[in-house]
Amino acid sequence: MAKSKFERLPGFRDFTPEELDGVLHIFDSWRTVSTRYGFSEYGGPPLELLDLYVEKSGEEIVQQLYNFQDKGQRKIALRPEMTPSLARILAGRHRAMAKPIRWFSLPQLFRYERQQRGRLREHFQWNVDIVGEQGVGADVEVLAVALDGLRELGLRENHIVARVSDRKLMTEILLVLGVKPDNVSTVFTIIDKMERTKVNRSMDRLCAEAELDTEAAEKVLEICYEDQIEVLRQKFEASISITERLDVLQIYIESLEAKGLGAYVQFDLKIVRGLAYYTGIVFEIFDRAGDLRAICGGGRYDRLLELVGGDPLPAVGFGMGDVVLGELLRIRKLFKPESAKVDLFLVIVGEEQRTLALSIAHNQRENGLTVLYGLRPETVGKQLEMASKIGACQVLMLAPDELERGLVVLKDMKTGEQREMRLEEFIT
Amino acid sequence: MAKSKFERLPGFRDFTPEELDGVLHIFDSWRTVSTRYGFSEYGGPPLELLDLYVEKSGEEIVQQLYNFQDKGQRKIALRPEMTPSLARILAGRHRAMAKPIRWFSLPQLFRYERQQRGRLREHFQWNVDIVGEQGVGADVEVLAVALDGLRELGLRENHIVARVSDRKLMTEILLVLGVKPDNVSTVFTIIDKMERTKVNRSMDRLCAEAELDTEAAEKVLEICYEDQIEVLRQKFEASISITERLDVLQIYIESLEAKGLGAYVQFDLKIVRGLAYYTGIVFEIFDRAGDLRAICGGGRYDRLLELVGGDPLPAVGFGMGDVVLGELLRIRKLFKPESAKVDLFLVIVGEEQRTLALSIAHNQRENGLTVLYGLRPETVGKQLEMASKIGACQVLMLAPDELERGLVVLKDMKTGEQREMRLEEFIT
Repeated sequence: MAKSKFERLPGFRDFTPEELDGVLHIFDSWRTVSTRYGFSEYGGPPLELLDLYVEKSGEEIVQQLYNFQDKGQRKIALRPEMTPSLARILAGRHRAMAKPIRWFSLPQLFRYERQQRGRLREHFQWNVDIVGEQGVGADVEVLAVALDGLRELGLRENHIVARVSDRKLMTEILLVLGVKPDNVSTVFTIIDKMERTKVNRSMDRLCAEAELDTEAAEKVLEICYEDQIEVLRQKFEASISITERLDVLQIYIESLEAKGLGAYVQFDLKIVRGLAYYTGIVFEIFDRAGDLRAICGGGRYDRLLELVGGDPLPAVGFGMGDVVLGELLRIRKLFKPESAKVDLFLVIVGEEQRTLALSIAHNQRENGLTVLYGLRPETVGKQLEMASKIGACQVLMLAPDELERGLVVLKDMKTGEQREMRLEEFIT
Repeated sequence: MAKSKFERLPGFRDFTPEELDGVLHIFDSWRTVSTRYGFSEYGGPPLELLDLYVEKSGEEIVQQLYNFQDKGQRKIALRPEMTPSLARILAGRHRAMAKPIRWFSLPQLFRYERQQRGRLREHFQWNVDIVGEQGVGADVEVLAVALDGLRELGLRENHIVARVSDRKLMTEILLVLGVKPDNVSTVFTIIDKMERTKVNRSMDRLCAEAELDTEAAEKVLEICYEDQIEVLRQKFEASISITERLDVLQIYIESLEAKGLGAYVQFDLKIVRGLAYYTGIVFEIFDRAGDLRAICGGGRYDRLLELVGGDPLPAVGFGMGDVVLGELLRIRKLFKPESAKVDLFLVIVGEEQRTLALSIAHNQRENGLTVLYGLRPETVGKQLEMASKIGACQVLMLAPDELERGLVVLKDMKTGEQREMRLEEFIT
C-alpha cells in the first residue's frame, strides 16, 4: 500500500517543500514590490455570505462557487475573488482613514469550474487596490506595480505585454458607431470573446444580439483593431467625450513611459474585461508568445463600494494569479527553486557526546544557523553520509579524543578541508 | 450608510494592515525558527474529503466541521487540522524520501464551534512534524522547536511552561492501579478534564464510567499529581514496562535540559491529550499565569499514517495556534507592530515636474526604497502635510528654479535639515 485510500480533491494542489518554494518565491516578489510602492498588506476570511458575491456578479456566479449552508443556516461561499471582501471591510472603516488607501492582499481563491490547463479550482492571487483617488495617477501606479511585480520575477518586455483600454472611451465610440445604449454591454461581451471567435461568428452575434446592421457591425469590429490614439482623435474629433477620454488615456500611457515601462504597454481596444463592474481604464497582462491565458487583469471600478452598501468611493486595482504566472516562469526558465541550506551538521562519534551535541545545536541555532544532527545512534560513516545527502556546508565532529583536549574538528564539505577548533567557540 | 449591508461571518477575522502585522510577525518567528531546525515548509488544500477526518477522529467530529457536498456530489470539509492532510500527502510519496522527514506548515484551520474567548471559528496554526524516526531524539527536537518558536517572540520561562507526560507510561500505571484495559481511554478522558472539574465529580466519573472502586479511583487521582520521576521509580519498581518508560522520559527531559530549555519543562501526568491517536510522549504548553487555554499541544502518533491507508511510519509533531498566542503576547506586552516605513516622498511643485517625479519614483523603487508621491495635483503645503502624516523619512522637493540648475532639495523629516543635491543622483 503505497498510496492513501483518500485522494486529493480534483483541482486542488498539494505543495511539497520544492513545490511550495516556487509559490513562496512569487509571494516574496509580490510583497517586496508592494512595499516599495507603499502598499500595506491586509487579509480577510476565506468564507463570506453568498449574497456578497451575488450582489456584485449576479445569480449566475453561484454555479461557479463552492457554496453551502453552514450549521447556523447561513448561506455562505468560499471566496472566488477578494474585491467584495475588500469593499465590505472598507465600508465599515474607510471614513476614519487617510485617502488614498493603498492596500494589497495574497488570498487563496476558489471556483468550482470545469478543469483545464492553467485553470484549477483554487489559486493564490496578488490583489492590489488604490481606493479613494479618482485621478488617472492612481491608474498609473496600479499598472506600474503589477508590471514591476512581474519584472521582479525576471520577466522583461520581450516576455510580457500589458494591453490597455478604457471602457468609457469604448462606450462613447460604440454610441457614435450606432450601438444603442442598452446594447453596449452586449457588445462588450462579444468584443471580450472576439479573439477566440471566428470573425463571421462575431459579426453574426453583433447583428443578432446587439441589433446592428452589417455595416455597423463591420465598423465595430474594425475599430477594435485601431491601435493609434492619433487616428482615433482624427476619426472622432467631433465628439468631445471621446476626445476627453483620449486625453486621459494619453496621460496614462505617457506616465507609464515616464516610469520606464513604455515598452510593456500597448493600447488595445479589444480589452474590455468581461466583468460589468469596471468603469474606466482597464488592462490585461499577457505573455508575448500568447500561449497562456491572461496573467493579470484589472482596472477602475468606481461603483463597487456603493454596491455593497458603503459610501461611493473611486477605486482601481487588479488581481494576478499564481498558476498562469508560475507556468510562464517555468516556460521562460525563470523559476529557480533554492534548496534549503544546512549550515552545520554535528557528527556524534559516541553517545556520551550527545548531550554536548544538543547543547551546541541549540547554541548555534540561537546564533541563527541551520543546524542538524542524527536523532538516533548511528555510525560515524552513516552520519557523514546523511550530512552529505542533505547538502550540509560544514560538519562538526565531536570525538572523545579531541574533546579531551577541548577540541572539535570542523570539516568544510565543499573543499574537504578539516581543522581543529576550540570547543568553546561553539557553545557560546 | 457607513457600514456595508453585508456582515462578516461570526467567528472569522478581518485583518487591517495593523492587525495583519501581528500575525505576520508571528509567522516570521515560526518560519525563522523552523528553518534553523532544518524543517521545510509544505502546504495542502483547505478542502479535503470529509472521510479523511471521520477516519481519524470518528463520526462526532462532523458536528464541529464546516462540511458540505460539492457540485460533484463529493462530501467534503474545510480542514479542522493539518495532520490528516500531511498523512495523505506522505502516504503517496514518503518511500522515495530520506528519513526522517522534517516538515512544517502554516495552514488556516476551521471549526464550527460555539464561540468563546480565544476560540474563533478559524485560526492559523504552526504545524511541525518529524516523520520516520521512532527514537526519543525526535520528540526532543519537536518540543525544542516549539519552545524556541515562542522564545523567538520574546516569551521566557517566567511566561510559559511545557507540561510533558507519556501516554504509554500512564497506561502502564493505570493497569497496575487496577484499571481494566478497556477502560484506559475512558480514564484518559476523565484525567484530561480533571483540572477544570471538581474532585468529587472526577471521582464519581472514575467509579461510574471506568468501573473503579473508591480506593482505586483515589489512587488514580493522587498519582496524577506526582511530579517526581524518582518517586514513581520507587513506587512502581516491580514493573519493567513502567521503569522502561521512565527511562525514556528521563532521557527526554535531560535532553531538553542539555539544550538549555530545562526551565521550560515540567513533568505532569495530568497531561494526556484528549485525542486517541497519540501513542507516546505528549505535551502541552501553557502560559504560567494559567489564564489562557493551551498555546500548543503535541506528541507522538505512530499509527496515523497507517490509518489513512499508508505504510506504518512513526511520527511526532505539534500544532500551535495564533489566537491564544496573540492574546498572550498582548497581555505580556510583547506585541510590537511596526508601522510601514516610507523612505522617500516626492513633492511635485508644479505639474510640469510630474513626469520627472514618475521617473525618480521608479528609479528609487528599483533601488529598493519605498517611495510615494501625490497621485493628483495638490499644493506644496498639502503634499508636505501628506508626507508628514504617512511618516516619510525624507522628502525630495522638485521645484522649477532648482531643477533649472540641475538641483533638487532633500529634506530630512526628523531633523528638518535641508540640502541641495544633484538631480542625477536620483535618476540612476
